[in-house]
Amino acid sequence: MKRIGIITSGGDCGGLNGVIKGAAAMARAHGATCFVIPNGYAGLYNLIEFDSLTELTEERIDAIDANLAGSEAGHSRVKVKKIEDPNKYERIKAGLKKFNLEGLIISGGDDSGSVLVDLTEHGIKCVHAPKTMDLDLQTYSVGADSTINRIATFVEDLKTTARTHNRILALEVFGRYAGHTAFRGGVAAGADAIIIPEIPCDFDIIYAHMKQRYFRRIMNSDVRSGTYMIVVAEGIKDASGNEIVDESSTPDAFGHKRLAGAGTYVTQQLTKRLKADPTVAEHMKKAGMFVQGINEIPEVRAVTPGHLVRCGHSSAYDVNFGKEVGSGAFILLNQGISGVTVAGISGGKVRYMATKEAIAQRFVDTNQVAIYEAQGICFGRLPGVVNTVPELLTGNIERLY
Amino acid sequence: MKRIGIITSGGDCGGLNGVIKGAAAMARAHGATCFVIPNGYAGLYNLIEFDSLTELTEERIDAIDANLAGSEAGHSRVKVKKIEDPNKYERIKAGLKKFNLEGLIISGGDDSGSVLVDLTEHGIKCVHAPKTMDLDLQTYSVGADSTINRIATFVEDLKTTARTHNRILALEVFGRYAGHTAFRGGVAAGADAIIIPEIPCDFDIIYAHMKQRYFRRIMNSDVRSGTYMIVVAEGIKDASGNEIVDESSTPDAFGHKRLAGAGTYVTQQLTKRLKADPTVAEHMKKAGMFVQGINEIPEVRAVTPGHLVRCGHSSAYDVNFGKEVGSGAFILLNQGISGVTVAGISGGKVRYMATKEAIAQRFVDTNQVAIYEAQGICFGRLPGVVNTVPELLTGNIERLY
Amino acid sequence: MKRIGIITSGGDCGGLNGVIKGAAAMARAHGATCFVIPNGYAGLYNLIEFDSLTELTEERIDAIDANLAGSEAGHSRVKVKKIEDPNKYERIKAGLKKFNLEGLIISGGDDSGSVLVDLTEHGIKCVHAPKTMDLDLQTYSVGADSTINRIATFVEDLKTTARTHNRILALEVFGRYAGHTAFRGGVAAGADAIIIPEIPCDFDIIYAHMKQRYFRRIMNSDVRSGTYMIVVAEGIKDASGNEIVDESSTPDAFGHKRLAGAGTYVTQQLTKRLKADPTVAEHMKKAGMFVQGINEIPEVRAVTPGHLVRCGHSSAYDVNFGKEVGSGAFILLNQGISGVTVAGISGGKVRYMATKEAIAQRFVDTNQVAIYEAQGICFGRLPGVVNTVPELLTGNIERLY
Amino acid sequence: MKRIGIITSGGDCGGLNGVIKGAAAMARAHGATCFVIPNGYAGLYNLIEFDSLTELTEERIDAIDANLAGSEAGHSRVKVKKIEDPNKYERIKAGLKKFNLEGLIISGGDDSGSVLVDLTEHGIKCVHAPKTMDLDLQTYSVGADSTINRIATFVEDLKTTARTHNRILALEVFGRYAGHTAFRGGVAAGADAIIIPEIPCDFDIIYAHMKQRYFRRIMNSDVRSGTYMIVVAEGIKDASGNEIVDESSTPDAFGHKRLAGAGTYVTQQLTKRLKADPTVAEHMKKAGMFVQGINEIPEVRAVTPGHLVRCGHSSAYDVNFGKEVGSGAFILLNQGISGVTVAGISGGKVRYMATKEAIAQRFVDTNQVAIYEAQGICFGRLPGVVNTVPELLTGNIERLY
Repeated sequence: MKRIGIITSGGDCGGLNGVIKGAAAMARAHGATCFVIPNGYAGLYNLIEFDSLTELTEERIDAIDANLAGSEAGHSRVKVKKIEDPNKYERIKAGLKKFNLEGLIISGGDDSGSVLVDLTEHGIKCVHAPKTMDLDLQTYSVGADSTINRIATFVEDLKTTARTHNRILALEVFGRYAGHTAFRGGVAAGADAIIIPEIPCDFDIIYAHMKQRYFRRIMNSDVRSGTYMIVVAEGIKDASGNEIVDESSTPDAFGHKRLAGAGTYVTQQLTKRLKADPTVAEHMKKAGMFVQGINEIPEVRAVTPGHLVRCGHSSAYDVNFGKEVGSGAFILLNQGISGVTVAGISGGKVRYMATKEAIAQRFVDTNQVAIYEAQGICFGRLPGVVNTVPELLTGNIERLY
Repeated sequence: MKRIGIITSGGDCGGLNGVIKGAAAMARAHGATCFVIPNGYAGLYNLIEFDSLTELTEERIDAIDANLAGSEAGHSRVKVKKIEDPNKYERIKAGLKKFNLEGLIISGGDDSGSVLVDLTEHGIKCVHAPKTMDLDLQTYSVGADSTINRIATFVEDLKTTARTHNRILALEVFGRYAGHTAFRGGVAAGADAIIIPEIPCDFDIIYAHMKQRYFRRIMNSDVRSGTYMIVVAEGIKDASGNEIVDESSTPDAFGHKRLAGAGTYVTQQLTKRLKADPTVAEHMKKAGMFVQGINEIPEVRAVTPGHLVRCGHSSAYDVNFGKEVGSGAFILLNQGISGVTVAGISGGKVRYMATKEAIAQRFVDTNQVAIYEAQGICFGRLPGVVNTVPELLTGNIERLY
Repeated sequence: MKRIGIITSGGDCGGLNGVIKGAAAMARAHGATCFVIPNGYAGLYNLIEFDSLTELTEERIDAIDANLAGSEAGHSRVKVKKIEDPNKYERIKAGLKKFNLEGLIISGGDDSGSVLVDLTEHGIKCVHAPKTMDLDLQTYSVGADSTINRIATFVEDLKTTARTHNRILALEVFGRYAGHTAFRGGVAAGADAIIIPEIPCDFDIIYAHMKQRYFRRIMNSDVRSGTYMIVVAEGIKDASGNEIVDESSTPDAFGHKRLAGAGTYVTQQLTKRLKADPTVAEHMKKAGMFVQGINEIPEVRAVTPGHLVRCGHSSAYDVNFGKEVGSGAFILLNQGISGVTVAGISGGKVRYMATKEAIAQRFVDTNQVAIYEAQGICFGRLPGVVNTVPELLTGNIERLY
Repeated sequence: MKRIGIITSGGDCGGLNGVIKGAAAMARAHGATCFVIPNGYAGLYNLIEFDSLTELTEERIDAIDANLAGSEAGHSRVKVKKIEDPNKYERIKAGLKKFNLEGLIISGGDDSGSVLVDLTEHGIKCVHAPKTMDLDLQTYSVGADSTINRIATFVEDLKTTARTHNRILALEVFGRYAGHTAFRGGVAAGADAIIIPEIPCDFDIIYAHMKQRYFRRIMNSDVRSGTYMIVVAEGIKDASGNEIVDESSTPDAFGHKRLAGAGTYVTQQLTKRLKADPTVAEHMKKAGMFVQGINEIPEVRAVTPGHLVRCGHSSAYDVNFGKEVGSGAFILLNQGISGVTVAGISGGKVRYMATKEAIAQRFVDTNQVAIYEAQGICFGRLPGVVNTVPELLTGNIERLY
């Protein structure tokens, strides 16, 4: 295969530039060339109208900074399925033919993966380099580690303001169906509570945990200082297991309804309980914090960093993984393998899965959650049982890096 | 003076721990001791009820990390004027007497400064160490430089996500009446437009500037990539000079009404114009970005980092300045000077102003704005005239550090 | 088991505080308590002389910041084998007995692991939580990911100064026998060459790679700007496979001789070749950089960040992994398993290896190196063959997080 | 003036790209154009041989990232005075004539400033935008604030490793004659001792300060943890006022002899005293740290970050200041003012000094040092007297931003 198009799609995150560089450099090593198809599926659909495509020469690859998050190739909100043009696949094929592109490397999440399955069925050879900040594919996917590090840093930073005002703070992060980044970012930063879609949240349990811990900290501090930090995924469910969906919103391009602000919801739930709890005033008085009519209960605040958790820099792991799955995608494509998702390269093997299988949603393992509940983090339920069987390993074991 | 209380108050920010350390260490050097009055005016009002106060010994000073933003002493939303207790000043004096505190060092902004004027009039000796992230006092005040650096970093980081999706992005930051941090953070990060309360914003002007620059970037990019970054202060005014106040909100403890979300407002103003502009589709088509019904105009998004711009770390300058005004506050208090605001220490002089004068609001100088308009930044008006007279300096000149 | 001592030992790095917090919190969840044995094996040897030990209560655990690198428990250069006291094991046992400590959790690298084997043979129950920044144990070990991120950031930062002066720059990092962190940090930051102990370095090959790439960049730059970045591990070998050891140095506590400065060595090797190469002046002239007697060849510089790559913050992954292996260490110890190294917790299993096996040195896989050689990075040899067999995966796969 | 050349020279640092962008954008606003003269004086000397120069169009200015430290224009080690060509000024003039450059904006330090004086005397119109990381000009100069922030961050980070091993650590930074960055970075990071060229260092005084503070911290820590952090400028002098020069080194292009490693020197001085002090073993025993033959005295280590303190990112202030002095340089040049150094823009005035006067070295004010000695920082002498006269200010005062 001599000429390959690269597309990145979906939400942006860390590691995407690593995928592009890895694919393009590996192609060059095999005498092939990669070309950028700009702005995701918008560019793919409009390919036929382009005068020229940017070739990823040694020089041009050099100019891409893999340490920067986001994608040099660009994304758009266009999903192939949603394009109403009945001739869209013909138009796409005509575009590929115009530039003699023999295959595609597509980096994206589950929506992109399903597009890839479509394209493959329409006879277009494609390999999928997994990307989703949410980490809810079966494989690891670029972006998650960068985001988890950013979430952790933000929580850590927010502790200074929370402690100064003795506030309870909820940081709302992405995670519509799976809470991997809230979970791992929260653990990393020492959050007191982590609320994820996988575990319906009983706010009475969070409240009780918060009240004990918050006032203990304040009373044990010689300057009467304390806080309670919550990390909450946008897609949380209440104790009855219902999503906190904003019913008034219209579905997006991918058919998803907007969720209600999880941070605000947490704030309201806790404030309501603080106001209704007659013992809080007593605690505030003991702490010297109570002032009638002005400072009777602690404040609860939400922070929603939004795009800030997905931008800026790529973590070292995401660049490494990105370069490997990008390279691997070329190697597989070059060997005629299509419709698959690269899982990684190790021990001289390019590991991959069928894309249909790879994009099945993967949720946070509640066994793992129980390990952290035992360590004192509240997940909005009564702590699970730590069910850990020792397992002896021998020989060469799989590991990060 | 042998025993002094330290209070920090108002919004938290960088440099406050420097103030506390500087004051306490300078007191120790003069054989005096500082004590922490916890949680701002809540602690001052309730002082009488405390069993003990934390003394800032060598050990305890050591334990305060001046590199962390926020305040070891703590803040609260309590403002002395708002406390309804008619005996509040007697109660405060009784508290001070209980612990034999002869004077107060208060670090805060204009509201704290006015409390300090009150307290002075009630016979309590106080010196003011200026703090406001907003930089709208007459003197420099701790917190501004830290915040400006954080704003700049956030804008820089956001460029990766904005460019990836070819989005126009507005970062909303604090600044109710004065736009110093939006201005300086925006300049530092190379924002394309900066909207501040001092300059009523004509969105037609912003829109024209945006459209030219945004599409120029995309067409000049070999991967059709571009963005347009806006930094907007919360307290912006529209072209007729009216604040974007949320009328439905109730006034806070300091009598301020909540402002409408400036980021959202900017987003709406620009999106409205993009939708109404018949030439945009043509530009989108030329860029290969147009897809009927899905991607007809560029997206405009807002990010509101909130507390994230005021937390985390203190900049080096804020720690240096904080330690100097903290030290200076003790020196002045120890010499019997009260009711004043420290402006800095240099050349062997502790410089100060009457607090009444120091807390007069200082706005962004529109002469300085014109310098950046000439450099291509849009401030929502037609560029001002660069009116710069050369001025020859000789001898020892004032400078940062 | 009710009372357990925690020891951290060897070089410090990220994730250690996670280990301590994870172990102590998991112990509390089982009704047991952990105690800090201060300063590594110095504290263990002197335990008998302590009046008290710090108990890791809920409060005290709270006070440990897992986001900070390094260890709250402290380290020292003491290795039990090197202590000349013939009664040392009796003394250690007496110390453990004095405080009724029934077992030890020890976090350290290969040297600590071998001490653990010793202690186990002397009847002291211990579990090993793997730590080594160098990543040269069989399992993943806390510290590596934090260090790799720091190396990557430093290389990225150094590009600004290198490009400004058109310098070739070598960043020297730790890695006496294994080059994992140089390798992964270099890949992450887009280093042009990476020199690791596993691959004897032929400087003629590096030189040729550098010359081509460096001058290509400069000539392709419209401001005649270029650089070439090298990451080099301290323990590199020359083309004949000999270590660059400083023969004049005396062995350290662990019997290791000091290695010669790898950064300086690289600098000398490249400068020597630049001086001897008659075509360099021509290149310099073409670039407009040549000035007789002053600027005839490009400069090569070395930077040795030393401790800076191991301090500061822990990466999110290191905290997560640390908390898990700390927890796992308690769980195993509590089940009577001793003399083992925790490899991780996943899927409800605490996975472990015999410590003797776990501390066997693991080197960089040269198959993986070949993947990056194909992408254009020079490792001081002719590029290896990319020998990658596709491997289809199904079902639940192992992954980071 | 319609065509202007921009040169940056000397050591690189933060803010330089701000200067370039500010100058070029302000020129454009006046209908003039700036051109990059690549690689400092090497490019100026070789200008005659260039085929073309890069014009700073709107597009090209856009491509310069002011947040990155270093200079897009490039530097070199070439100093005009050192070029042995007797016709060098004619050659330079011919180069300027070839490209019709009517004036130069030069950003550099004292050496660049003196070149500028030379060039002016040879009839070339130039304005100087002050740059020196060392901050030893009369005006503020870009780079200092960025460097001070980096030094502070490094010291802060190093505390984790120092505390873990109970080490005394010395961070060596630049500062041959003036210690501004060591001073301000050290204050910002809470260094225990700061050694600067302005104050000859009595190591007996440092030692006594260290011993008291180091062991106090360890004994007051419940985990026997402590450190002592030193920031030392490369150009320190010993108690007799002699520089620690490496006599064996040959003078550099600017006639300076290499200084001995200040970090290593500090390490040796303190270690020597620790070894000779019979009471140290007693302290080590009390702390439970003593092990015969292995751990008898605390370790002292030096870290030399070198280029790491001058690279990476520019602080917000440096970008703001850089853009202002760059703009100001154009404005002055355009008004026919030459041979001067821009000091800043404020209140509608472009302030400047004669370059001859501006490049006179400015040292750390020992009055300011005394303020920090009173706060407990040791500067290698007996604490100075705090000589602070209160000074009342009124009206509009000068301040940062």
